[in-house]
Amino acid sequence: MSDRPRRAAGRIAVTPSLSPRDLDAPRPLAQAWQARIITLFPEAFPGVLGLSLTGKALKAGLWGLDTIDLRLFGEGKHRNVDDTPAGGGAGMVLRADVLGRAIALAQRGRSDSPLVYLSPRGAPFTQATARRWAGASGVTLICGRFEGIDQRVIDHFGIEEVSLGDFVLTGGEIAAQAMIDATVRLLPDVLGNAASVEDESFARGLLEHPQYTRPTEWQGHGIPPVLLSGNHGEIAHWRQQQSEELTQARRPDLWAEWLARQQDGSES
Amino acid sequence: MSDRPRRAAGRIAVTPSLSPRDLDAPRPLAQAWQARIITLFPEAFPGVLGLSLTGKALKAGLWGLDTIDLRLFGEGKHRNVDDTPAGGGAGMVLRADVLGRAIALAQRGRSDSPLVYLSPRGAPFTQATARRWAGASGVTLICGRFEGIDQRVIDHFGIEEVSLGDFVLTGGEIAAQAMIDATVRLLPDVLGNAASVEDESFARGLLEHPQYTRPTEWQGHGIPPVLLSGNHGEIAHWRQQQSEELTQARRPDLWAEWLARQQDGSES
Repeated sequence: MSDRPRRAAGRIAVTPSLSPRDLDAPRPLAQAWQARIITLFPEAFPGVLGLSLTGKALKAGLWGLDTIDLRLFGEGKHRNVDDTPAGGGAGMVLRADVLGRAIALAQRGRSDSPLVYLSPRGAPFTQATARRWAGASGVTLICGRFEGIDQRVIDHFGIEEVSLGDFVLTGGEIAAQAMIDATVRLLPDVLGNAASVEDESFARGLLEHPQYTRPTEWQGHGIPPVLLSGNHGEIAHWRQQQSEELTQARRPDLWAEWLARQQDGSES
Repeated sequence: MSDRPRRAAGRIAVTPSLSPRDLDAPRPLAQAWQARIITLFPEAFPGVLGLSLTGKALKAGLWGLDTIDLRLFGEGKHRNVDDTPAGGGAGMVLRADVLGRAIALAQRGRSDSPLVYLSPRGAPFTQATARRWAGASGVTLICGRFEGIDQRVIDHFGIEEVSLGDFVLTGGEIAAQAMIDATVRLLPDVLGNAASVEDESFARGLLEHPQYTRPTEWQGHGIPPVLLSGNHGEIAHWRQQQSEELTQARRPDLWAEWLARQQDGSES
């Protein structure tokens, strides 16, 4: 790991992939929130995260991104990282020894940072997960491929398993980008006021009311008159009602939780 | 839209962003499954989808990817795409007229292809959604930014709203990549046998059992002896038991559904 500054102005502050040699050198403590990705596809990063608001924040040094190329920790001259499942079955499993070495490098001096394996077996990722990670010094995400990783690594390091949802991806890289995006936008100064507004709305546990903007007339469709009335009380009431009706119709699970909270009096 | 072939060998078969001029020219019917993305960040694509298995399949012409740059449909010399919400409030809303023109181009000759807005208000994306989309001729995904899109567009085109999960992203681009990845891997010839195995496992509605591989001994941890026994019946039984225990402990919702299906006799 070189000492090159991670906040070089005007370019995206992604350091080259960390390598096994870096195990020998102490790592300086990063100042900003740091995402570290263990992956067979380091070239997938920063990807979408290098654009738009997350990209601007990355360039501004508000957060940092390291990739750790798992291939560099592989066995033998072909740098093998996987092998067939013990007990038989289709697919390949990432080896405990190979992944273990990569994790040891990633977690050096970062014991306060969640260590996460992205897996459909994990707890569902939610806005609460994003808030928790945003409050830590960073996060280390292990991107699986193939049939998964050796269970002993999960047990040995106490790895947290988190799932993006009830579907199967070809690998963890896209899931990592989604989770980092959701987390980074909660970091101080990344979005400013806009973030807090959106987040409060989501935190209420209701779906968003419909939105309208110019033109006032489009393809024969107008804007609901209440929104043009200038009566802020009525507008707020209409939006609340729309949110409640949408939530009840589309997400009975969120609606039940919201009703329960109302009865607990934890919300006015 | 030029007539350049979408299956040019040896390079990723992504056509340049479609533009408003393309509305005047009839589009040839695509042969392969086609993802079409309406976005303010066309440079975000193919992103991760250009790597690994989805990238190989894209190069092989097993699926295709078009981006439609929403900015090209904007109003005035600054090509404005958004405006303030009717009725007031923070953030900006994508204009009905601007988005409407982009959608008209995207859906030309593709009435059988789902038209989807990626939004936290939508129905949760699941493996069943991926299967449904994989069975269509393609999918058109609208990536939001800011506070959302004008509701009249959703109503006018009968747009389906789909959510990646209960969290807020800075935009729909990462969600689009996740959903396309989950869908493309189900297309014929993209993954072959590996896909069907994984998918069946997920379709059973239970979480995956733990996996192990070489080395047999790692950091003092061995592999469960049953997996080294060579007794296929016992191995299958152990894995099923592990799957059931994991599901019961981690996902009571999936477990309840699985039990209900067992009682219905729809699974043996």
